[in-house]
Amino acid sequence: MRMSDLSRRSGVSVTTIKYYLREGLLPAGRQLSATQAEYDEQHLRRLRLIRALIGVRGLSVSTTRDVLRALDEHAGDTHILLGLALGSIRIVEEPEEGTPEPAEVGALIKELGWQVHQSAPARAALAETLTSLRTLGTPLEWRTLLPYARLAEQTAAVDLDQLDWIDDPLEVAERALLLTVLLEPALLALRRMAQENESARRHAED
Amino acid sequence: MRMSDLSRRSGVSVTTIKYYLREGLLPAGRQLSATQAEYDEQHLRRLRLIRALIGVRGLSVSTTRDVLRALDEHAGDTHILLGLALGSIRIVEEPEEGTPEPAEVGALIKELGWQVHQSAPARAALAETLTSLRTLGTPLEWRTLLPYARLAEQTAAVDLDQLDWIDDPLEVAERALLLTVLLEPALLALRRMAQENESARRHAED
Repeated sequence: MRMSDLSRRSGVSVTTIKYYLREGLLPAGRQLSATQAEYDEQHLRRLRLIRALIGVRGLSVSTTRDVLRALDEHAGDTHILLGLALGSIRIVEEPEEGTPEPAEVGALIKELGWQVHQSAPARAALAETLTSLRTLGTPLEWRTLLPYARLAEQTAAVDLDQLDWIDDPLEVAERALLLTVLLEPALLALRRMAQENESARRHAED
Repeated sequence: MRMSDLSRRSGVSVTTIKYYLREGLLPAGRQLSATQAEYDEQHLRRLRLIRALIGVRGLSVSTTRDVLRALDEHAGDTHILLGLALGSIRIVEEPEEGTPEPAEVGALIKELGWQVHQSAPARAALAETLTSLRTLGTPLEWRTLLPYARLAEQTAAVDLDQLDWIDDPLEVAERALLLTVLLEPALLALRRMAQENESARRHAED
């Protein structure tokens, strides 16, 4: 398809598409002439992913470039791709660095029997929350997180079930990244609504 | 206690405490003389809450004032307090307004049999995610969210169990707000680690 079709089908303006091409986020199309190039479904899918990462999640262009490059480099290995998409890519910008991980994060992961990379940013995010709660005078014992972690296991199984039917490894990874990044606000919203409902239910029993 | 003790115990500087007093976030202490006032445990708890809302969650001073005022106004009614803390206070700033809610949000809540206020910001957050996914060309059928919602119900039950042992209604609401606001990044981190683990587990079976 021509750039105008790519723009129409993705909802991204031609100006913005040209910007993504210049910044190396989107691979060049197949050159038909000096002024025309041909784009395919891969470009469309990539464009939707870029839009999700920048427009919805608010990542910078350079972080988005890193995320996409990591996906491309490991296109042959589904498991590495999934690991990258789900666990190890730093899609939170400016992560905390240099502070040693509190022992309780390791203790929790060990108790759960989970395999989690030492460098997974989720570990740092968890550590940061535990540290914040302690600083605020409302410390949370790590064992308190166990029932939440067991529910997270079930949630992750639902997540991965949704990827089972996709064949193309790169598409699996892209879809996983989308679901991870974009589903988060929906899951938090569901928890808040469930809390409101559970509070109403318990109060009605009084 | 004196302001210096309040500062030491809360970890908030005297300058910042004075600022919160001026801005009406923290109620004045009991005046002992023209230059000295006495503060109590209520002040300490309130200060920790302010620090969580501003320092950790990044709310503005004026939004924090609104949240605290709502808590104070309903100090007598546990259920309203919980509703405010858990469901109905807009702790996300500049929420989307004016767009009608997509029918699928109502359909989901009806199917779940949940009681959720029409004005709960979580509804808008959910609607926004569904709209984003559709715009991105990766629409999510609302029924796909049902298993996530059932897991959210269980999560909410764990949340409320943690509040059962607290007597003071205002403390319940404050604690609920803290857990809601501060636990969110930890829950997302647990999901990401669980995804990584589940992916490793499934891959090992191949």
